[in-house]
Amino acid sequence: MALILYDLAADDTAVRFSPHCWKTRMALAHKGLQADYRPWRFTEKAAIAFSGQEKVPVLVDGDETIHDSWRIARHLDSRYPDRPALFTEQPPMPLAEFVNAWADKTLVPAIARIILLDIHACLHPTDQDYFRASREKAYGQALESVVADRAAHLRALGRALSPLRHILQSRDYIDGTAPAYADYCVFGMFMWARCVSAIPLLQPDDPVHAWRERLLDAHGGMARSAPVAAA
Amino acid sequence: MALILYDLAADDTAVRFSPHCWKTRMALAHKGLQADYRPWRFTEKAAIAFSGQEKVPVLVDGDETIHDSWRIARHLDSRYPDRPALFTEQPPMPLAEFVNAWADKTLVPAIARIILLDIHACLHPTDQDYFRASREKAYGQALESVVADRAAHLRALGRALSPLRHILQSRDYIDGTAPAYADYCVFGMFMWARCVSAIPLLQPDDPVHAWRERLLDAHGGMARSAPVAAA
Repeated sequence: MALILYDLAADDTAVRFSPHCWKTRMALAHKGLQADYRPWRFTEKAAIAFSGQEKVPVLVDGDETIHDSWRIARHLDSRYPDRPALFTEQPPMPLAEFVNAWADKTLVPAIARIILLDIHACLHPTDQDYFRASREKAYGQALESVVADRAAHLRALGRALSPLRHILQSRDYIDGTAPAYADYCVFGMFMWARCVSAIPLLQPDDPVHAWRERLLDAHGGMARSAPVAAA
Repeated sequence: MALILYDLAADDTAVRFSPHCWKTRMALAHKGLQADYRPWRFTEKAAIAFSGQEKVPVLVDGDETIHDSWRIARHLDSRYPDRPALFTEQPPMPLAEFVNAWADKTLVPAIARIILLDIHACLHPTDQDYFRASREKAYGQALESVVADRAAHLRALGRALSPLRHILQSRDYIDGTAPAYADYCVFGMFMWARCVSAIPLLQPDDPVHAWRERLLDAHGGMARSAPVAAA
């Protein structure tokens, strides 16, 4: 039975920009699994109510429904053990989970402060209202104020990336000589930005830039060829 | 043959406060290995010149000399494979190395901005001159200016700890159900602060606080009983 992934979409439904859905997209590509990538928007809560919660990614695999990108990755290695492994650790993969937490808790807020308005600009009008209201409530200020000091936010992102930059000086991927799920967790953050924003996050001489290029080329250049929002 | 560890010491040589030496101290305790912990000060470069470089920790294990806490940890698992393993991953342990890089590149600067003057206060007078000159050159300002806005630096540390806080909500240690080298890499940062400073870095309701308590109690309470600098 075909896999179905509910995947966050922009107003142009060809543009799929969720950092967490990108983790899952790369995981599916890593395992060589095809899926039906169904566009879903922030305000379409009813369409994924069957999953028992309100966020994507949601994977439907036969008669199983799995939500949360981390749980989906674990499901894929468990359900398809004969395909390339996403994890090099034994369950529960605590160190890969640390890398995932670093992506979510450190990189998401650092990148969000740079691209929030670009995200807003690419959304369907109904989603735009939802996005602005929910994010401005969380930040306690207008989106325009959050992103105002872009130069400072880019410097802060550069500092936040220090551990990644350091390890990529001596190897090609976070998980060693080949990409694995820990890499996709972090790469998803950069695909989020790439799909909605033209703001350069990395300098070309940064080892993180070279790593991102390698992952853009991985799995037949799947990520590099992904549609991005019109400027 | 007995192991010898060259270990950074305060003016009171009972106080051993280097974050990187603490990684190694915890690693030796984890493996149940005794060592002769030799006090060493910043300005005693000649005493470790035999290691071919100028920083501690330096471990002398029989006719082998190993410097750099990461390389020492790998040596210990390789040389003493029948004792409890420091690493749960296979070599080259890339994800544990990411955690180590996060401790060094994110937590060291975040904590340094809080405790720099406390470090300075506990040093031998000769080391005080070296420490002030080298750090003020690196920061481009007086130590007093670096630490001036302590409240902001404590908030920044709290944010930097977000990934750790997140994973410790669902398990007791970074590496899962038992402490391993990834835990010691991060715990070393807190021992650095504990040995020289009375400034509270964590709130009692923080999961990171509970994790630190568990590691203070580990290996017979070795870390909890370590001498700290007089206030």
